[in-house]
Amino acid sequence: MNRFLDNAIQLAKMAEGQTGVNPAVGSVVVNQGRIVGLGAHLKQGERHAEVQALDMAGDQARGGTIYVSLEPCTHYGSTPPCVNKIIEAGISKVVYAMKDITLDSPGDEILKSAGIDVEYQHDIEAEKMYRDFFAAKVSKIPEVTLKVSVSLDGKQATDAGQSQWITNPDVKQDVLKNRARHDAILTGAGTVEVDNPSLTVRIEGERQPIRVILDRSGRLSFRQNMFHDRLTPVWLYTENKALQNKEHPDNIKIIQLEECSIHNILRDLYDKGIGSLYVEAGPNVSSQFLQSECVQTLIIYYAPKVIGGSGKYQFYQTEEVLSLDKIPQFEIAHSEIIDQNIKVSLRKK
Amino acid sequence: MNRFLDNAIQLAKMAEGQTGVNPAVGSVVVNQGRIVGLGAHLKQGERHAEVQALDMAGDQARGGTIYVSLEPCTHYGSTPPCVNKIIEAGISKVVYAMKDITLDSPGDEILKSAGIDVEYQHDIEAEKMYRDFFAAKVSKIPEVTLKVSVSLDGKQATDAGQSQWITNPDVKQDVLKNRARHDAILTGAGTVEVDNPSLTVRIEGERQPIRVILDRSGRLSFRQNMFHDRLTPVWLYTENKALQNKEHPDNIKIIQLEECSIHNILRDLYDKGIGSLYVEAGPNVSSQFLQSECVQTLIIYYAPKVIGGSGKYQFYQTEEVLSLDKIPQFEIAHSEIIDQNIKVSLRKK
Repeated sequence: MNRFLDNAIQLAKMAEGQTGVNPAVGSVVVNQGRIVGLGAHLKQGERHAEVQALDMAGDQARGGTIYVSLEPCTHYGSTPPCVNKIIEAGISKVVYAMKDITLDSPGDEILKSAGIDVEYQHDIEAEKMYRDFFAAKVSKIPEVTLKVSVSLDGKQATDAGQSQWITNPDVKQDVLKNRARHDAILTGAGTVEVDNPSLTVRIEGERQPIRVILDRSGRLSFRQNMFHDRLTPVWLYTENKALQNKEHPDNIKIIQLEECSIHNILRDLYDKGIGSLYVEAGPNVSSQFLQSECVQTLIIYYAPKVIGGSGKYQFYQTEEVLSLDKIPQFEIAHSEIIDQNIKVSLRKK
Repeated sequence: MNRFLDNAIQLAKMAEGQTGVNPAVGSVVVNQGRIVGLGAHLKQGERHAEVQALDMAGDQARGGTIYVSLEPCTHYGSTPPCVNKIIEAGISKVVYAMKDITLDSPGDEILKSAGIDVEYQHDIEAEKMYRDFFAAKVSKIPEVTLKVSVSLDGKQATDAGQSQWITNPDVKQDVLKNRARHDAILTGAGTVEVDNPSLTVRIEGERQPIRVILDRSGRLSFRQNMFHDRLTPVWLYTENKALQNKEHPDNIKIIQLEECSIHNILRDLYDKGIGSLYVEAGPNVSSQFLQSECVQTLIIYYAPKVIGGSGKYQFYQTEEVLSLDKIPQFEIAHSEIIDQNIKVSLRKK
């Protein structure tokens, strides 16, 4: 593994979760074995990573090599194509870690015909990082992470609705960090009513994702804390046409859809610039997401308890009974122990 | 650990080994939880990390927080003080991971009196990274890493001088990577004569450190490969006053010192801008370095062999016999297995 390409991927990772529907990209310009510029795409609509790095390098880019975590773009979007900038800067060689399968035209030819050496050093880390971005861009829905905190027997609460046992400070901290890496957090109306959560990131200096509520019937009273703290906007999805006219705080955006299916909501969120969504909800909404097959990452925190009962609050419940070859398939990507809780991260297969 | 401060330290690490006698520093500017600028000090005499990051951030720096791996400087060197730039940029808060004990004046007061919040979040990774830089700056000698490849019984060769058994491709690759992270590589005249090494970094795109030869008597003929490959300069230290007049290729700089003690050579190298030195030599020069107590990092690659003999080529030999409390003291920092060789990295205590 080339260390400069590795640096470019590290830079991309720094910006993950803050680029909306754009990919997180990092770039390093090297001349005679010395880094002369580095950059990352930091926000949708702003300069691409290559441009940042080339600007920092200035004249020192001439004759140098640019390392990019993702294939440089060839299109005029909110900024001009990076391949043009690379050619103008006098770069001799381009090395990138991942092909952009969503590009209209391949940049390799353009670069090569300008006399630039192009090398695709496929990197598995980069592939992992962009997999969900590609899926999201092709299907035009955000990358979805579903998080559940459950007992060892898969329940979010006892049949009586008790769930305080789940809370563990270290797990909570891990959840907050994860929230901050997403553009938006989604939960259901039931969770808002019962738990009155803030759904914010209580870590100093971190960004607050947009809060999204699924309230099909439009039953919420807007009395809950999150409607009044003004820490970050609240978007409420509903099928209730009358809700728009109901009095509500002005930081709440009411979005009425004919049918609030998970897929319709995700399409609409993507259109509004949400590239990544973190779902933290009760069994009802969690199950709808799992059934929709739109969950790329499933994170389960298992508390070391078995709580039995009838399983009223099992995190995954469906009316239809699917055969084993039809159920959602995941593979374990990572597992760790967090203060006696087991965190398992899974990827959609 | 704050993730943005961690990013700043990562950025510093990317530039390690290319900043000469300056420290490697990384910086991230954050506004409302979003990275708006990032930078690293990339070369002695060029812009500091804070300036790079603030330039990238532009107007978005106003009201933001700047994270820096090392306390921002307050002095006019080759560039103006970073604290001024931070104040001008309208930054609200400065967070840094390591105090710069070599600074003439503390920046905290200057920043605070400009109404900026200053937080020193001491970080152990940053401390490790700057420990040698501080030592080098105070003593005005480079950070020294001594590397030896030996048998399990501590010999660089058999009594007959055979040492081919040491070469292992994966170990060699590890050594090459290490070379590239230093400003210069030093070896002795004996090694040049016997092994005819190139002492270059044969990894595509990597920088070639300067090659330094210790040849007190001035016995070398300049026939060896490294004097003719022109891949990177050769500096030759000698006590032989006549050597300057002997015909030699013009990429060789002959440096004549009254006494070529390890300490004198290191002082001179530091004056010439060498901030880090990688020593790869035979028992004679290796032993002189260990005795000089100037070795901060000792890296030993043990091949899985015991070769016996009288130990003519043991890597550490001294005329004087020191008592156990006077011998150089190290502590193990890291150990790993590289293709059946054991690499042990030690730090001077």
